[in-house]
Amino acid sequence: MRITIIGSGNVATHLAAAFKNAGHAIVQIYSRDLQNASLLAYHVRADAIDDLELINQHTDLFVIAVKDDAIETISAALAQYQKLIVHTSGATDLQTLLKYTQNAGVFYPLQTFSKTREVDFNSVPLCIEGADEHINAQLKELAYTITQNVYQINSAERKTLHLAAVFAANFPNYLYHISQQLLADQQLPFDLLRPLILETAKKVQEHLPASVQTGPAIRNDEKTMKSHLYQLHEKPELEALYKLLSQGIIKMNDAG
Amino acid sequence: MRITIIGSGNVATHLAAAFKNAGHAIVQIYSRDLQNASLLAYHVRADAIDDLELINQHTDLFVIAVKDDAIETISAALAQYQKLIVHTSGATDLQTLLKYTQNAGVFYPLQTFSKTREVDFNSVPLCIEGADEHINAQLKELAYTITQNVYQINSAERKTLHLAAVFAANFPNYLYHISQQLLADQQLPFDLLRPLILETAKKVQEHLPASVQTGPAIRNDEKTMKSHLYQLHEKPELEALYKLLSQGIIKMNDAG
Repeated sequence: MRITIIGSGNVATHLAAAFKNAGHAIVQIYSRDLQNASLLAYHVRADAIDDLELINQHTDLFVIAVKDDAIETISAALAQYQKLIVHTSGATDLQTLLKYTQNAGVFYPLQTFSKTREVDFNSVPLCIEGADEHINAQLKELAYTITQNVYQINSAERKTLHLAAVFAANFPNYLYHISQQLLADQQLPFDLLRPLILETAKKVQEHLPASVQTGPAIRNDEKTMKSHLYQLHEKPELEALYKLLSQGIIKMNDAG
Repeated sequence: MRITIIGSGNVATHLAAAFKNAGHAIVQIYSRDLQNASLLAYHVRADAIDDLELINQHTDLFVIAVKDDAIETISAALAQYQKLIVHTSGATDLQTLLKYTQNAGVFYPLQTFSKTREVDFNSVPLCIEGADEHINAQLKELAYTITQNVYQINSAERKTLHLAAVFAANFPNYLYHISQQLLADQQLPFDLLRPLILETAKKVQEHLPASVQTGPAIRNDEKTMKSHLYQLHEKPELEALYKLLSQGIIKMNDAG
């Protein structure tokens, strides 16, 4: 396929590379910042543009990988070319594109990307949604060229998925931060906790989290929880967080 | 070294195996449940006992790996043999052993163990504390036979570490559970989130969590947070948790 990438951020970068590796032609990279566009374009042998007026019409697909609040303006500008347009956002309805074109879909990779880390795209879940069955089939075929994990997910489901991803990744990372800060307060290195963090994530690759829950709350070990809360008594926000999370874990026990 | 293991749970099992693999002799495994003791003893070619009266005095070290509230009773019973005694608990002071013997220490592996998963002990941080310098040296030498990551940690530091480990592992696992439940409510498979969970944990192996924080809160993306809270409005506990965690992340931004 001939693919045009709108955006030069983390998702744009990783998708462009994955498409290129799978043998697709990247036609152009658009970014408001020409330098960013050029950098990515160089890697995937595409042309860089910083003006939507310079779009090359000889493409099969526009992939919009920009900030959520810019998706609508950009799809409005691209609709005139009458090519397939997809966005890559977990938080944005397909409806946002359908206002401007029926030839639309969603191509949402459920992974956290950073420019400094290689991601094996082959294991990244790709959530696709097309405006009709023909587009679904097209997107599915494209998705399978870069990953083995393709899911047909509608906009309502994707909304849930996006929320769940916050609980699965953004919030755990914040808890890692808290743990790192607690250690730093006593000049202890974060390396002490890194293997534990990795093993905890590995465990749920095979098991459901409820079946591998450990710690004082799941044992209802009140003595330890009281001691932990005492250690946090000068950090009221962490104290509140500890209580709320522990109460939730204690209820898991009641439910099971 | 000749080592006697008191306990047959996850920590006892993994420690006994690691000691055995490193060439130490496991003398006896004690458990209140003889069947559990026998199972582990069979694997590490030790004798199984379910009565502390049957302790073989021809040992160099007692490793107490039992529930926290049983440590004191057991160390009281073992003190008569005048051998080195260590416990393996993150939440227990060295003082608990010192009431009964000066020949005491702590040997705390900072990892989550389950009987169904192999753990590469070589990367497990071992936190040691001895009642005196001689014991410190002994424990350090022993620790380096089974891992490369040995840390001298006193009882106050270990208390912080134990609390931090709850934030680094037990609480994230509970958040994984919430994400899995949100998906299950809509018959979506947890496999959608597993790669994201693993990659999030991998990221902090090289970086500090604050430098790789993502999601709507760190961007102060109020529209997305409002939409997420609306999705949770029939689950008040999750709504409260979402708010508290997001507020904390927003403050990271202010601090940085």
